Amino acid sequence: MRIEPIASGRPAENRDGFRLYDRVATRISGLIEQGTLRPGERVPSVRKFSVQQAVSIATVTQAYRMLEDRGIIEARPQSGYYVRARRWTLPPEPEVYRPRPQVNKVRVRDLVLQVVRSSFTPNIVRLGVALPSAELFPTRELHRVLASTGRRAPHSCHSYAPPTGDPGLRLQIAQHSLDAGCALSPDELVVTCGASEALNLCLRAVTKPGDIIGIESPTFFGILQIIESLGLRVCEIPTYPRQGICLEELAHRLKHCRIKACLFTPNFSNPLGSCMPDEKKQQLVELLTEREIPLIEDDVYGKLSFTPTRPKVCKAFDRDGWVMTCSSFSKPLAPGYRVGWVATGRFREKIEFLKWTNTLASASPPQLAIASFLQSGGYEHHVRKLRRIYADNARRMTEIVSHCLPEGTKVSRPNGGMALWVELPQHINALTIYERALAQKISIAPGPIFSVKQGFQNCFRLNFGNPWTDEIERALTRLGQIIATVGKEKSR
Amino acid sequence: MRIEPIASGRPAENRDGFRLYDRVATRISGLIEQGTLRPGERVPSVRKFSVQQAVSIATVTQAYRMLEDRGIIEARPQSGYYVRARRWTLPPEPEVYRPRPQVNKVRVRDLVLQVVRSSFTPNIVRLGVALPSAELFPTRELHRVLASTGRRAPHSCHSYAPPTGDPGLRLQIAQHSLDAGCALSPDELVVTCGASEALNLCLRAVTKPGDIIGIESPTFFGILQIIESLGLRVCEIPTYPRQGICLEELAHRLKHCRIKACLFTPNFSNPLGSCMPDEKKQQLVELLTEREIPLIEDDVYGKLSFTPTRPKVCKAFDRDGWVMTCSSFSKPLAPGYRVGWVATGRFREKIEFLKWTNTLASASPPQLAIASFLQSGGYEHHVRKLRRIYADNARRMTEIVSHCLPEGTKVSRPNGGMALWVELPQHINALTIYERALAQKISIAPGPIFSVKQGFQNCFRLNFGNPWTDEIERALTRLGQIIATVGKEKSR
Repeated sequence: MRIEPIASGRPAENRDGFRLYDRVATRISGLIEQGTLRPGERVPSVRKFSVQQAVSIATVTQAYRMLEDRGIIEARPQSGYYVRARRWTLPPEPEVYRPRPQVNKVRVRDLVLQVVRSSFTPNIVRLGVALPSAELFPTRELHRVLASTGRRAPHSCHSYAPPTGDPGLRLQIAQHSLDAGCALSPDELVVTCGASEALNLCLRAVTKPGDIIGIESPTFFGILQIIESLGLRVCEIPTYPRQGICLEELAHRLKHCRIKACLFTPNFSNPLGSCMPDEKKQQLVELLTEREIPLIEDDVYGKLSFTPTRPKVCKAFDRDGWVMTCSSFSKPLAPGYRVGWVATGRFREKIEFLKWTNTLASASPPQLAIASFLQSGGYEHHVRKLRRIYADNARRMTEIVSHCLPEGTKVSRPNGGMALWVELPQHINALTIYERALAQKISIAPGPIFSVKQGFQNCFRLNFGNPWTDEIERALTRLGQIIATVGKEKSR
Repeated sequence: MRIEPIASGRPAENRDGFRLYDRVATRISGLIEQGTLRPGERVPSVRKFSVQQAVSIATVTQAYRMLEDRGIIEARPQSGYYVRARRWTLPPEPEVYRPRPQVNKVRVRDLVLQVVRSSFTPNIVRLGVALPSAELFPTRELHRVLASTGRRAPHSCHSYAPPTGDPGLRLQIAQHSLDAGCALSPDELVVTCGASEALNLCLRAVTKPGDIIGIESPTFFGILQIIESLGLRVCEIPTYPRQGICLEELAHRLKHCRIKACLFTPNFSNPLGSCMPDEKKQQLVELLTEREIPLIEDDVYGKLSFTPTRPKVCKAFDRDGWVMTCSSFSKPLAPGYRVGWVATGRFREKIEFLKWTNTLASASPPQLAIASFLQSGGYEHHVRKLRRIYADNARRMTEIVSHCLPEGTKVSRPNGGMALWVELPQHINALTIYERALAQKISIAPGPIFSVKQGFQNCFRLNFGNPWTDEIERALTRLGQIIATVGKEKSR
């Protein structure tokens, strides 16, 4: 068996914020999961695997011990390590959720604020919030760029940027959008204060209070809050955990309900992690364009795919400008810089006006620094690293969750982003779990904050965007115990 | 006569972005304007004045020659310089404008965009836009602070700031607000992307589309655009060029018109430059509080008073939290940093929610840098300097305008801010002047963009926020010629 070495060309120490033996263990458990190594088969010997992976014997030994602790492999005296007969299987995926075809006002504010605030409790293990951890980012490099930009161009840093954004940054964004299948002109782009402002401007450009927006279900609570703050109503569209929006249902609801615009996250939706295949994206754009319904596309996670190439955006199939694509550097690069953008399509003039009245212009120093960082090529290098880390984290989290959670639990299979969606057996209430976990200094994002009618009562979201630590592992185990206890209480 | 020296303790070179002889000339013309030196009286001799002001003889000579060129003093052979009999007097001030007591939709967008865009024409003398010039600001010092903040706290710079803003910055803002007569708690403050976002959040917190806002007349076109973008209507309240809103008229209109909130600029309103006296501010707050009508107070110019102490804000008289005060560092310190704030009063929860949904949080590096700059004391020092410069510029601009413009012109008397409001004789159209001036690479802000019904057809705004140059002086003279030509064409 030939396995691509982990450490080739890379020094055998901790580089990506977590441990090499951890990486080795993930490699082995990946092979088991794929079926390359089957139950009862011998795992490569420590010596052989250490040579093959170009890591030390100590590293492989430590990795194998960890896998043994997790019950994935077992040591047989004088013989080596073997794959254990599976005590666990990967739990099934959640099924498509079919909300009632009705229009609803949005009122999630209080519950969301409570959850978000609680996640800022000191010394808490934050499994619930999708806050990218600074440790995984090139903070110092980026800051050096910021400092040198200010030295080189103090006046540009100090003065208002154009309302639509720094021209150099817009050029870089346009060039980078080629990866997503788009040939955008810098003139079509408006730089915003994160994707939040971009979504606000798009919604305001095409709706007035009371209008109906088509959204995924479940959908990110931040999107629900923006919709609530603008006094809009929603029609929730059933969404497949892998392939996104159900187009037939969408077509049906477009007929029966005056949907004014759609706001979807086609790539690695939050919380499901679904990713629409390209042909489905094309169909979606055609469906909406035909009816002259604007599509607001949230692509904040598109760059964070676990595959070497990122998926296309819907904008790539947009011939008539009905698609507005919003994204930002907050998730893949620098949350605190608040640099997002929108490709405005046919709504350019309206969006430019709204940007001008809403915040005048985005802050200059972060724009100039990111433009310079992108130009240097540092961005792509960093994103490649981040993708590997998130993919590893996702696999690891899925594995532990699979072990710890009760029979009947379902887990999503994200191929990007940083969210794992867990559906517990019907009788277990996620809000109860959320409260019990919080009492033990663990935060999760309970399902009800992801829908307008507080559905998903037995679901919650986990976030794997933090550097992997023993603390996270312990918190997940602890969470499993809490769920087991609550489950037993309920079934009594 | 004892005149306080200009150069005491200050090196005799160009420090504040303009020339020392210019300063000396302004001192002399100030003395003439005040009546300390009267027509026919002898101006202090070059030698004596150079000793007294601690500047070189060459500097005073140059200053006196400039004053001679302007026709303010004259040389008499063997005798020295004398104040000339005035060929000009300071023009009268504009009178209060009394718009019809009616409610109007706002549609200024197209004209404003045209004016704003035209002011970005290359190689233009920008007399019309209130863009603070980077040359007058401590750009390098501020940037050094930005760079060192990032070195000291790379993670804070990189991560999301709290939605309400960096706590250190809020503390500094609260402390600095003592100057404006307020004892604010940092918890009452929400940091925003400039005052623009602050005004947006306040309006959204207390109104819904179609509601009526009481505003000054004339009022800043940026405010009109925000109101337009939110689908609100306005009731324009007559405004005195010196003392701001006419309270009797306001009280009257509150009775007859369902005004939902007021948005005023009590300190150095833009474009009039009016400043409400403290007791009038108190009466305003009482009037509105009694009727439970929120007051949104725009204080972006409050810090830029020409007097050593800045005027109080209305917030200082607010007992029940009906006043929301918006301000920013854009005018006095760093436009490109986009750091503003709002003191939320009783609307704190709503505004916090709207900030969260609108832009999530403001950019971290600018917030941290400004907090650090404020703490160092650099801010107050800089503002003192800026006030002197703007006061000098205002006097100089008034003087030239008084010379150049036709009989019947009226000019405002700002005591702060950076706007001068000029009212031409009725028959001269400011849009014609705007277009002719633009053709000669001079931009002004024509009156019609400052009202909802395109009133103020014979008015325009000049901006004195740029470092004084010969180019500005020539442009003003040129503007006078254009106005004279247009005036003659019209009276034919």
